[in-house]
Amino acid sequence: MEYRISYKLKNLKPSAIREIFKSLSDPQIIAFAAGNPAAESFPSEFIEKSCADILHNNTVTALQYNITEGYPSLRNAVKERLSSAFGIGKDFDETIITSGGQQGIELACKVMCNEGDVIIAENPSFIGALNAFRSNGAKVVGVDMENDGMNIRSLEQALKNNKNAKLIYVIPTFHNPMGITTSKEKREKIYALAKKYGVLILEDNPYGELRFSGTDVPTIKSMDSDGLVIYSGSYSKVLSSGMRIGFLVAPKDVMSKIVVAKQVEDVHTNILCQMICQSFVTSDQYLPHLDKIRALYKKKSTLMLEEMDKCFPKSVKYTRPNGGLFLWCTLPNGIDLTEFVSQALKNKVAVVPGTAFNCDTEAPSDSFRLNYSTPSDEQIVKGIQILGELLKNTGAK
Amino acid sequence: MEYRISYKLKNLKPSAIREIFKSLSDPQIIAFAAGNPAAESFPSEFIEKSCADILHNNTVTALQYNITEGYPSLRNAVKERLSSAFGIGKDFDETIITSGGQQGIELACKVMCNEGDVIIAENPSFIGALNAFRSNGAKVVGVDMENDGMNIRSLEQALKNNKNAKLIYVIPTFHNPMGITTSKEKREKIYALAKKYGVLILEDNPYGELRFSGTDVPTIKSMDSDGLVIYSGSYSKVLSSGMRIGFLVAPKDVMSKIVVAKQVEDVHTNILCQMICQSFVTSDQYLPHLDKIRALYKKKSTLMLEEMDKCFPKSVKYTRPNGGLFLWCTLPNGIDLTEFVSQALKNKVAVVPGTAFNCDTEAPSDSFRLNYSTPSDEQIVKGIQILGELLKNTGAK
Repeated sequence: MEYRISYKLKNLKPSAIREIFKSLSDPQIIAFAAGNPAAESFPSEFIEKSCADILHNNTVTALQYNITEGYPSLRNAVKERLSSAFGIGKDFDETIITSGGQQGIELACKVMCNEGDVIIAENPSFIGALNAFRSNGAKVVGVDMENDGMNIRSLEQALKNNKNAKLIYVIPTFHNPMGITTSKEKREKIYALAKKYGVLILEDNPYGELRFSGTDVPTIKSMDSDGLVIYSGSYSKVLSSGMRIGFLVAPKDVMSKIVVAKQVEDVHTNILCQMICQSFVTSDQYLPHLDKIRALYKKKSTLMLEEMDKCFPKSVKYTRPNGGLFLWCTLPNGIDLTEFVSQALKNKVAVVPGTAFNCDTEAPSDSFRLNYSTPSDEQIVKGIQILGELLKNTGAK
Repeated sequence: MEYRISYKLKNLKPSAIREIFKSLSDPQIIAFAAGNPAAESFPSEFIEKSCADILHNNTVTALQYNITEGYPSLRNAVKERLSSAFGIGKDFDETIITSGGQQGIELACKVMCNEGDVIIAENPSFIGALNAFRSNGAKVVGVDMENDGMNIRSLEQALKNNKNAKLIYVIPTFHNPMGITTSKEKREKIYALAKKYGVLILEDNPYGELRFSGTDVPTIKSMDSDGLVIYSGSYSKVLSSGMRIGFLVAPKDVMSKIVVAKQVEDVHTNILCQMICQSFVTSDQYLPHLDKIRALYKKKSTLMLEEMDKCFPKSVKYTRPNGGLFLWCTLPNGIDLTEFVSQALKNKVAVVPGTAFNCDTEAPSDSFRLNYSTPSDEQIVKGIQILGELLKNTGAK
């Protein structure tokens, strides 16, 4: 039987990362490819206690249908934290609980884009978002990244060239895959251009709570006096990724459509986990827990960078993140990335080739992404040593 | 700010039922409008115990990312039950866990339909599915229902008239909103027409485990020797609706695209609740639990029908379901449905007007839906008495 698959899904490939994830069941593999939070970052004891309490004392609420917008006390907790820590929340804004940050990104696209409309994205960018856009028939136009964020001239050119651009998608803080942070000046310029061209910004900030060095840079959403920014966040990296709890903030006129779009996707996000999440983020353990995770990732990223400094040839360049989960390595000219990644996997070290993050799926890359939250300290040391050997074998100086 | 919302979402209204749900927080309202399982149908003690066990002994698996396809042991349990109880599962089929039955329906549409493509649906039909289709830019074409399922001649006409029809959407067992069951003969004819015109069937069966009288009718999926049927099911009505756990079975070539589409919607369904679900459906409590729910809904539907027989004028017609959650009342000519529904709400009884389920959103209706799973026995008696009085006041004989 020849199935007539929709154009938008027909050529969409599964995420390379999710596919690599399946191969990680081999315990011998050192996983620098995932984006998983460290297992030791889950507040397991709190969750166990809180969950028992909810199921015992609030059983029916935990198991029955609820409203699409999300568990009201969790929405309030999200609003309070976003306001106090990120300067987010104007009178025209509304907040919804989503099934992970991923769903918020997908819904924003669905609500704003017709098939063929354009989303302008940082290049490289988060594969999950790019594929969410493609799955809705939107076309992704990439703007090259510099060390302090998008090339602003290229962004304006992309806006001029694409009258049907509906969203500018950015991960300004601890970028995935690059680990860099967009400067305040560039954030202001991106906002000004969005305003000038009447295009909304989709600000994705799943790692915003994970700064372990440097100083805070204001969110673009905090600059949003015109109702131009849709803001996405997540509890995947600070509570539990398996729970699939995220949130989205958007101007009310956009949010009313996002609520309808979510209603027909999954009715609402699973309510038991929303309640566990609410009990955690409103407890006195939440802020100390954030400090604990930051310290953990600071330690792990420092260890990885120290080993890289020791083991990698000097011609291999890499970013030094102030937070988040990733760093980005760029090979010197002439080294075949695909061959290198494949050699690494043969030697039981998984990294993600930069091609997976390209807006143009056919474009080459000379970079790869490394994750330091998933592997153990021992794996970090051993895995970087293996990569270092392989890099030296390529002839890189 | 004038937002350029996508055409597909711009005119999509929130589900009348979800909106009515919000007003149900008024404890004085007798809710015949919802589709909630009875609170006493939740196996609370089992869930509490199982959840504690999972979080204590299998913490990291319960809280970490997992694969898009779903928790492997739950997928296996779904496959076994579908095979033994519903004759479902060919070599060419694959199963995925979804975030409620709703997501499976939405994904099937997204994978099969371009904007402007047609989905042929029973008229009336489940509003959540119709809106999921509309949210993907698909056009819904209704085929009128008879007491044993779709009018088959109208279905063939619709297939002839719509060359871009991609799916025939049916709820053949304990139909929502009508409570009727499509006959075996009509199921075979629907399958034959799908094959003749090369259009897939989306069989939605959320109430399939809830037969409390009459004899089983084979699922359309069990007749699927050609890979023409996508089958959707759910644990919302037999375990917990708040957990948002459903499943979808489809031919592998379609499923590979559904997996990609789900990956970019929510990565995977919340894993803790998948694990709780797995522990329940593989326990020796599951089948006795199904019997308990069936007995409960038999009692409730019998009570409601007995009261209707006593209190409603003879000219008001209604269906007598053999399972599921709903029955369907049709008013005699000349009675204004909107006025009746509004009077009912003023008298603290919420029902859903048939207009909410129409494929053509502008079309009138002379029917309304009643739900017997949500209200208490006392509410059923009192609510039907109130509706009976109002019906008599309309002058209906």
